[in-house]
Amino acid sequence: MVGQALAARLVELGHDVMVGTRDVARALARKEPDNRGNPGFGAWHAAHPTVQVGTLPQAGAHGEILVNAASGGASLEVLRQAGAERLAGKVLIDVANPLDFSKGMPPTLSVCNTDSLAEQIQRAFPALKVVKALNTTNAAVMANPAAVGDGNHTLFVCGNDGDAKARVTELVRSFGWRDVVDLGDIAAARGAEMLLPIWLRLFGVLGTPLFNFKVVR
Amino acid sequence: MVGQALAARLVELGHDVMVGTRDVARALARKEPDNRGNPGFGAWHAAHPTVQVGTLPQAGAHGEILVNAASGGASLEVLRQAGAERLAGKVLIDVANPLDFSKGMPPTLSVCNTDSLAEQIQRAFPALKVVKALNTTNAAVMANPAAVGDGNHTLFVCGNDGDAKARVTELVRSFGWRDVVDLGDIAAARGAEMLLPIWLRLFGVLGTPLFNFKVVR
Repeated sequence: MVGQALAARLVELGHDVMVGTRDVARALARKEPDNRGNPGFGAWHAAHPTVQVGTLPQAGAHGEILVNAASGGASLEVLRQAGAERLAGKVLIDVANPLDFSKGMPPTLSVCNTDSLAEQIQRAFPALKVVKALNTTNAAVMANPAAVGDGNHTLFVCGNDGDAKARVTELVRSFGWRDVVDLGDIAAARGAEMLLPIWLRLFGVLGTPLFNFKVVR
Repeated sequence: MVGQALAARLVELGHDVMVGTRDVARALARKEPDNRGNPGFGAWHAAHPTVQVGTLPQAGAHGEILVNAASGGASLEVLRQAGAERLAGKVLIDVANPLDFSKGMPPTLSVCNTDSLAEQIQRAFPALKVVKALNTTNAAVMANPAAVGDGNHTLFVCGNDGDAKARVTELVRSFGWRDVVDLGDIAAARGAEMLLPIWLRLFGVLGTPLFNFKVVR
């Protein structure tokens, strides 16, 4: 859902986008909705034909800016399959959350407090410029913040590379994000990922994922 | 700081307040500021003479509504010293955060993800009606939310007892809180306490504790 929402928004804004997947033919053949009612990838792609679809190594080679929209548990392996040598020097927007559904609902975090998924990725791929961003909102909101409260709410970014954060900030501003707060180095991803438990509670009590945090100051 | 801010606000609103401390004479003798520049308890009390000061058992016996404003690491022991039999049936507003400073700065959480300080308190004192609230803001903001953004931001409450949450909600509304969101049972305290890492980062980058989260929806 996250990859589809961002890919659709990026092509709408004129970007040249490739979605990477393990098995292109199988992904495109998937026409049935998933168990949450989301369209199958093939059905989604038929409605968004300008989005290119490639293997993980092809997608890794394609972009100047990469987006990790894999599940938290699969993220490191997906990036390994894309190939560290193809990723070197590029900006990676890490949107994933390390949700652990193995203990039932609600999910817990598989890493938190003294480490984060974004830091794990940065350590495993030191030549990547990892920027944690967009993981604290629903897919529809991240791609189009005006969908909630006229866009008057906050997006958090963090990472070790200032230029990478500036490029990501410019990109998300083009989505409509106006209040982008730089939390500092990649260790701040702990805080961003640790928003998930309260986000999930709010999703439950509000009955909609169409909300977001604003830092009022 | 939290206890002082809440006690001052409560007497201002006409409540009968007692602060509990291990050694009353020693606390009142403390006139020098602490290492963060906060006034010593005795100096603070001289400026707020209508706040009563008692032992932990006296404070536990005094209030209809109790506030845990001890440090996270001391909270369970402070409540034990107050005496489980005196606390039984009362509402406890748990404002504490389980911050662990032993690994340096910034602090990590001593419990999170699969448990929380509020749940530990609720398990240790099953006859208390624990309501997690006010732990996600600075002391000045919790007592007087209008200090930030005209009070247009969110307070989270959670707990297992609906009547207790209603009483706490009524109390915090008298402080000026207008957007009080009930997150559900006491396990939601995980999410509220896990806001601390991003709160601490924001404190650093904004350079002030005078901010708060608003749930825009």
